Amino acid sequence: MTRFVIDHPFAGDKLREECGVFGIKGNESASAHTALGLHALQHRGQEAAGIVSFNGGQFHVQRSLGLVADGFGDPKVIEQLKGASAIGHNRYATTGDTILRNVQPIFVETSMGGLALAHNGNLTNAHLLRRELVQKGALFQSTLDTEVIVHLVALSEFSTLPDRLIDALKQVVGAYSLVALTDSALIGVRDPMGVRPLVLGDLQGAPVLASETCALDILGADWVRDIEPGEMVIATDDGVQSLKPFEPEPERFCVFEYIYFARPDSMVEERNVYDVRKHMGRELARESGVPADIVVPVPDSGVPAALGYADEASLPFDLGIIRNHYVGRTFIEPTDHIRHLGVKLKHNANRGQVAGKRVILIDDSIVRGTTSTKIVTMMREAGATEVHMRIASPPTTHSCFYGVDTPSRKELLAARMDVEEMRSFIGVDSLAFLSVDGLYRAAGQAGGRLSNQPQYCDACLTGDYPIPLVDREGGHDANQLSLLHDYE
Amino acid sequence: MTRFVIDHPFAGDKLREECGVFGIKGNESASAHTALGLHALQHRGQEAAGIVSFNGGQFHVQRSLGLVADGFGDPKVIEQLKGASAIGHNRYATTGDTILRNVQPIFVETSMGGLALAHNGNLTNAHLLRRELVQKGALFQSTLDTEVIVHLVALSEFSTLPDRLIDALKQVVGAYSLVALTDSALIGVRDPMGVRPLVLGDLQGAPVLASETCALDILGADWVRDIEPGEMVIATDDGVQSLKPFEPEPERFCVFEYIYFARPDSMVEERNVYDVRKHMGRELARESGVPADIVVPVPDSGVPAALGYADEASLPFDLGIIRNHYVGRTFIEPTDHIRHLGVKLKHNANRGQVAGKRVILIDDSIVRGTTSTKIVTMMREAGATEVHMRIASPPTTHSCFYGVDTPSRKELLAARMDVEEMRSFIGVDSLAFLSVDGLYRAAGQAGGRLSNQPQYCDACLTGDYPIPLVDREGGHDANQLSLLHDYE
Amino acid sequence: MTRFVIDHPFAGDKLREECGVFGIKGNESASAHTALGLHALQHRGQEAAGIVSFNGGQFHVQRSLGLVADGFGDPKVIEQLKGASAIGHNRYATTGDTILRNVQPIFVETSMGGLALAHNGNLTNAHLLRRELVQKGALFQSTLDTEVIVHLVALSEFSTLPDRLIDALKQVVGAYSLVALTDSALIGVRDPMGVRPLVLGDLQGAPVLASETCALDILGADWVRDIEPGEMVIATDDGVQSLKPFEPEPERFCVFEYIYFARPDSMVEERNVYDVRKHMGRELARESGVPADIVVPVPDSGVPAALGYADEASLPFDLGIIRNHYVGRTFIEPTDHIRHLGVKLKHNANRGQVAGKRVILIDDSIVRGTTSTKIVTMMREAGATEVHMRIASPPTTHSCFYGVDTPSRKELLAARMDVEEMRSFIGVDSLAFLSVDGLYRAAGQAGGRLSNQPQYCDACLTGDYPIPLVDREGGHDANQLSLLHDYE
Amino acid sequence: MTRFVIDHPFAGDKLREECGVFGIKGNESASAHTALGLHALQHRGQEAAGIVSFNGGQFHVQRSLGLVADGFGDPKVIEQLKGASAIGHNRYATTGDTILRNVQPIFVETSMGGLALAHNGNLTNAHLLRRELVQKGALFQSTLDTEVIVHLVALSEFSTLPDRLIDALKQVVGAYSLVALTDSALIGVRDPMGVRPLVLGDLQGAPVLASETCALDILGADWVRDIEPGEMVIATDDGVQSLKPFEPEPERFCVFEYIYFARPDSMVEERNVYDVRKHMGRELARESGVPADIVVPVPDSGVPAALGYADEASLPFDLGIIRNHYVGRTFIEPTDHIRHLGVKLKHNANRGQVAGKRVILIDDSIVRGTTSTKIVTMMREAGATEVHMRIASPPTTHSCFYGVDTPSRKELLAARMDVEEMRSFIGVDSLAFLSVDGLYRAAGQAGGRLSNQPQYCDACLTGDYPIPLVDREGGHDANQLSLLHDYE
Repeated sequence: MTRFVIDHPFAGDKLREECGVFGIKGNESASAHTALGLHALQHRGQEAAGIVSFNGGQFHVQRSLGLVADGFGDPKVIEQLKGASAIGHNRYATTGDTILRNVQPIFVETSMGGLALAHNGNLTNAHLLRRELVQKGALFQSTLDTEVIVHLVALSEFSTLPDRLIDALKQVVGAYSLVALTDSALIGVRDPMGVRPLVLGDLQGAPVLASETCALDILGADWVRDIEPGEMVIATDDGVQSLKPFEPEPERFCVFEYIYFARPDSMVEERNVYDVRKHMGRELARESGVPADIVVPVPDSGVPAALGYADEASLPFDLGIIRNHYVGRTFIEPTDHIRHLGVKLKHNANRGQVAGKRVILIDDSIVRGTTSTKIVTMMREAGATEVHMRIASPPTTHSCFYGVDTPSRKELLAARMDVEEMRSFIGVDSLAFLSVDGLYRAAGQAGGRLSNQPQYCDACLTGDYPIPLVDREGGHDANQLSLLHDYE
Repeated sequence: MTRFVIDHPFAGDKLREECGVFGIKGNESASAHTALGLHALQHRGQEAAGIVSFNGGQFHVQRSLGLVADGFGDPKVIEQLKGASAIGHNRYATTGDTILRNVQPIFVETSMGGLALAHNGNLTNAHLLRRELVQKGALFQSTLDTEVIVHLVALSEFSTLPDRLIDALKQVVGAYSLVALTDSALIGVRDPMGVRPLVLGDLQGAPVLASETCALDILGADWVRDIEPGEMVIATDDGVQSLKPFEPEPERFCVFEYIYFARPDSMVEERNVYDVRKHMGRELARESGVPADIVVPVPDSGVPAALGYADEASLPFDLGIIRNHYVGRTFIEPTDHIRHLGVKLKHNANRGQVAGKRVILIDDSIVRGTTSTKIVTMMREAGATEVHMRIASPPTTHSCFYGVDTPSRKELLAARMDVEEMRSFIGVDSLAFLSVDGLYRAAGQAGGRLSNQPQYCDACLTGDYPIPLVDREGGHDANQLSLLHDYE
Repeated sequence: MTRFVIDHPFAGDKLREECGVFGIKGNESASAHTALGLHALQHRGQEAAGIVSFNGGQFHVQRSLGLVADGFGDPKVIEQLKGASAIGHNRYATTGDTILRNVQPIFVETSMGGLALAHNGNLTNAHLLRRELVQKGALFQSTLDTEVIVHLVALSEFSTLPDRLIDALKQVVGAYSLVALTDSALIGVRDPMGVRPLVLGDLQGAPVLASETCALDILGADWVRDIEPGEMVIATDDGVQSLKPFEPEPERFCVFEYIYFARPDSMVEERNVYDVRKHMGRELARESGVPADIVVPVPDSGVPAALGYADEASLPFDLGIIRNHYVGRTFIEPTDHIRHLGVKLKHNANRGQVAGKRVILIDDSIVRGTTSTKIVTMMREAGATEVHMRIASPPTTHSCFYGVDTPSRKELLAARMDVEEMRSFIGVDSLAFLSVDGLYRAAGQAGGRLSNQPQYCDACLTGDYPIPLVDREGGHDANQLSLLHDYE
Repeated sequence: MTRFVIDHPFAGDKLREECGVFGIKGNESASAHTALGLHALQHRGQEAAGIVSFNGGQFHVQRSLGLVADGFGDPKVIEQLKGASAIGHNRYATTGDTILRNVQPIFVETSMGGLALAHNGNLTNAHLLRRELVQKGALFQSTLDTEVIVHLVALSEFSTLPDRLIDALKQVVGAYSLVALTDSALIGVRDPMGVRPLVLGDLQGAPVLASETCALDILGADWVRDIEPGEMVIATDDGVQSLKPFEPEPERFCVFEYIYFARPDSMVEERNVYDVRKHMGRELARESGVPADIVVPVPDSGVPAALGYADEASLPFDLGIIRNHYVGRTFIEPTDHIRHLGVKLKHNANRGQVAGKRVILIDDSIVRGTTSTKIVTMMREAGATEVHMRIASPPTTHSCFYGVDTPSRKELLAARMDVEEMRSFIGVDSLAFLSVDGLYRAAGQAGGRLSNQPQYCDACLTGDYPIPLVDREGGHDANQLSLLHDYE
């Protein structure tokens, strides 16, 4: 009997960002603000959340499986997280099972005091480092890469926690946006290429760090600037200090943040995500227009691109698919007889708008293609005379190893099929993807992708991995761990 | 400390449909289909759900507080609801506290066998009838009007359950769409004015009854026709029989089903709801256009009207407000300091689209006006230079007594203020409502409202109550009960 | 996979009292006292509990599955049960599934006001009455006999609720101790033969009704007297009135209350239960002594009889079986390999006391005999050289139809086997039961059982049923219901 | 409002053993047996339990707050704990808050493979060691002493895990009985003085380690022998090896295991605990007899001593206090009016046995004395004419630092008052305690306590602490931790 988690009906057909991070220092409601910031970043990780606060004397830790509002919606929980500094984390598992022990922030006691750490990203040499650390007597109690970093900090011979953190980060390879809390500082760091986002805000004088600006908006905090690639900011009672401790590298921000991960209302790298997505739709219309009667978004992520497409193509935009917003936790398919339902639990064709029409269906991306097939069937059953699918990004052909949960390559539809095969598989009259250059133009690079120096990380679309895959090249499968299993 | 249920942030500012009903006969997965039908009708009632099935020998009853997927998503629950016939009900409380004892369908054993009954609507003489029945020795164990009907059935002297049900319904006054299940029949009835909706469908030969067509779509069932006002259909193994047992009355279908209650993808009285709402937007643009840069819907119910408005006004339509789809059960405001958040827990202004623009905000209706105020503030804080609000329905000035949960009149903004006062209260640059005639035109009545014979029930907009308010005129407050309290 | 509820490891081998009742009038903590009284009566029913209170204006009802402390331990629940009068009920299901709808007290609104009712016992003509009532149009929503009584009350033509209750009870046949609450009175009634217990107490002037005196002790209330067979007491603000409305019948109190049901610290019919049980042990030692080294009780119900036996036989009494008091809700047997554990989850042989000794094992009764077999095996494995079993009651050969949950006759070991066969089945060196006359002597009847006029109801031991089994003679199986199933 | 956990009504007036341990190797149902063994040891710790198993390739860990049956009663949990080796732990917190992170066994990955460790006892130099380890870069994630041991193992330079464990244990000071699991061995160790118990058993060829023999009995395992003080046993596929790696020390087994901690059916140091307790009662009767009518145990721990006392004094033994076995999780006292109830929720005087009699009340020990007072009041209210209290152990005057949860000295009644003051405080006619020599005689030391070389650890009774209190002398309060708080 198949269990459907109907809250994410297309989850199997989307890449999943693994994490959101948040931090604040110098506000008496630090943990309450952190909970709200994490709530605004919930789209970046729904499996678990954690907050560590510091009240001048002690650190306080709470972790919880499930949504932020479920774990941190109760003021009693917030009241226990005392103090004017806090960091928090939303988890979507990339490494390690989702169990409480693996929920960030990690907190450890070091000889220089307590250290809490949370990151968004993935280290590509975590296994190698872990093996070396275990040889030296380090004890691991989770399967988080963050634990590798804290062991490196603990064993560093530098004399302050920030120096030790720099020392540790110089040994790691990977993509990361990291927030840390010590007894005197709130610290934010982005990896040298700046693959994952991190912004600096200000709430009535208190510095705030967050993965996206939407987490500033919910608090009424002001956006100050993006943390720069390779930058470390250290906020203490004396103000915010900026360091550039690493070797400079060319910037390679993740282009998929624009395509799907970031919230449309966020400003990412100083661009409005919704606006970039509308431009993707416009580029798509220019590149692969087709005669039709109506432009229909696959809800909800396809909406901005569909608006851009419709406007560019001068076609009507309409909601040809309606979501059922009232969903419970799970719906288990009760019988064989109705096993085909799947997508219908959350969506329905708006027959009155679709019947008798030539439909252009707009989606942001295709991963496995399984739900696209069902959506197309739904359109045809509702009477669409033609169904043309337009995807507002290039084909997803490669796995990500920088902090995004991607299926193995063999499960990626675009890694197995060319466009015509995909068209046939999905069952549409025509199928087209946005070009890589079109994507770059929509994201503000008027000249498209510079092949000698690409402006973004687009490894999942091109196979061009800017950061070395150390463990993988050393034969480690990204998620395998030797000793642990079913941990707690 | 205020508790926010963030799943329904605007709930306090919307009318609420109280119920959805569903029935099917002659399908081996009857209860599974009923659960799915109720899930599709979830927007009509989220507080509780119940299903009664009949397997040829015994009736099986399950009731559950909360969403359908929570109570009926588990196949073990469905397996206990044996049999090829079933009826179900989604509850949004109008009368009686929401406790398990008050969840429909009601089931009773009569001298003619078992009878299950569920209805959408409200009887306006329930208290009077109840008092008379108690005098005769009838025992009431819930505070449901449905229990009044079953007592009338039990005491009727007719010799079949359908005849007794007709006898009972001739004694009640009110609006109702009712489904009933006996050991031999599935029965559907609409009150003589047809205030509440009820449609007949067909699933591979099995007759289906449902409040809206979206419940047919989820099963892949075909729509056959709407049950007519005053019609009773009786589905037995010998087919579906139609009776017209009541005195004919002029049809007065609830116009608010078009404005807000029904799902946009449903066909209601043979019209696509989404399409009617787009037309409301068009009428509104014609009646009260205003120079602006962008048309923004209040999500999600304002979207179709906003699309119609934008198209008619030749203005760009954009999502200027973004929903946070990942919400948990509750979020309790943690401190005074951040108590003003409210609406931000679920929505955020899409600053990149709104800043520096003249915004037309489209909503379907205003009840108390409290959240409109917050949305407008959010728009202004995001940099909108002007905010014009356009409401795709006339002012809601009166309470409903026909099965809709409305605040008392004194809480209705439009009962207390004129349009200019409301404009000032909400804080917009201009405010306009759709006219009653505009509404009727959008709903297909080209000539507008016929004052001698209005085509719809619009009591909440006009105060013209087509069905007598018997109890109310007799001095009964609609929800008062004499003896019970905190029941179970 | 078998699920063991380890809290009642011998439950399958004991008869089970089905109910405890409690009532109080004129004390401001009425519902708190009722919860405590029910807690003291928890041994009479562990499946569910309910309380109805009346605060001068409204009745308040709470029902809960599980133990009293779980459902009513929270002061918030108690605070909702407002008022100075309350009645309560502990349920152990005899008729009707254990679902909330079937938890007593039942509450109904009648033309003379609210009526709450709870009883301990069983009506033997409930099905006949129910059928007649349904013919008259009465609607049943539970499968409780109590509902039969309230319908008879509702249809009675007398003009006060007490008179109507008398009228109703004159129509029923069966064993019952009943408490009722109206807007002006707390009422207690015992059936004419007084089969089930009911005592009157006084808490600082407030009259109290309870199944046993232990429920008075927990409150510090004084015992006043036992309610007499066939007596109705009506406590109003004017005092406690006593009526004898029924035809007098010879008294036949349930002798099994002494053997097993009542708590040892209760005074039942003015005798200390512990003391009666010790006397049973003495009588047993006189009737069937056997050479041995140690007398061991089957815990905990066998302890008083074992003390009496040991004293009479001048043998050492020792705990040869030790209970594990720390038990959770359930323990499911994990594998075939250890499926034989069963009884060991809660008990262990005290090997140091038992090894090398001739053991007399004392139990109060044998129902199916299955656990006796396991206990005996445990004794032998611990090194007992001989095991003699002595049962402090006569063989249980017949089912009870007066409010006790007994297996069908064919499951009763003593209905299938003679003593020698039972001895062999259980695997002991010798087996003896207390004689009927010995039992009566222990219960204070020096001359033993008077065959022309037995002093107790001993139907389960003798097959002499003093109250007619009306439904059973009319062909009704005691627990069968025609229409309902899996209700709620 | 006070919350009473009624499952342990006298808990505040008893010392509490903090832990039970269990291990098994070479049995295909290893984890199921471990769960059952922990269930039998539940009296040694009810707050949490954990099991680690090893299936030849991977370690599997499950931890759960609450009772064993609640956390491990479900076969699905057991099935996840794959493998033929397992160790488990019942926790009663002495150090560290009871949160999941602090539940044993601890599991870590070392350079020599996985290591799981659980112990019963307390290290008296844990803080000192911890500080030194943190200086070296070790990261602590719990507040368990066990984590100190695993860090010492990880940093040891020996080449096998058993050798490293010996190396680590040579650095710790304290009382411990420890079980460990590696990928090739099950290891058991007792500290050099053998303060805490540990026995070796055999289940069909599979070696078993357990705190007490009752955990062998539940499985049907044979007792082999006690692990000796200072002994390490290493069970591998090649058999069970015994080492004596530590400097020999005089044996000082905890005498309170006989007084209260151990289950009466266990064999501890080859003596039946029940039998020792009966002898304590006999010695007590000899030392401080008093004329009376009845000997009444404080249930349940006072029963064996009361039987011994009654037999020695030739007085009748009777249950003058009856327990209510049916208790839920909690019962919160609902009103001021009935706040005095306390002990009555679980116990009642058996008035019929007590009224008019001179009662000798037997208890095993007195800690704070608060509940003794209530029990005595209960006896007097039930009509006892005299109440004499006899305690089957010497006065508890000192705190334990070897793994038992004792109140601080100032809360110990006997540290604040002499016997006459205590008599007056408790409100009895006379009070006497067993002498230290009487205790030793009952525990098999015919000559009483040898003052030059006491045979037991009796620090809580005499203040003679055989193991140095290193941290305490260094100024550390036993439970203080510097950085953590409210951890998870």
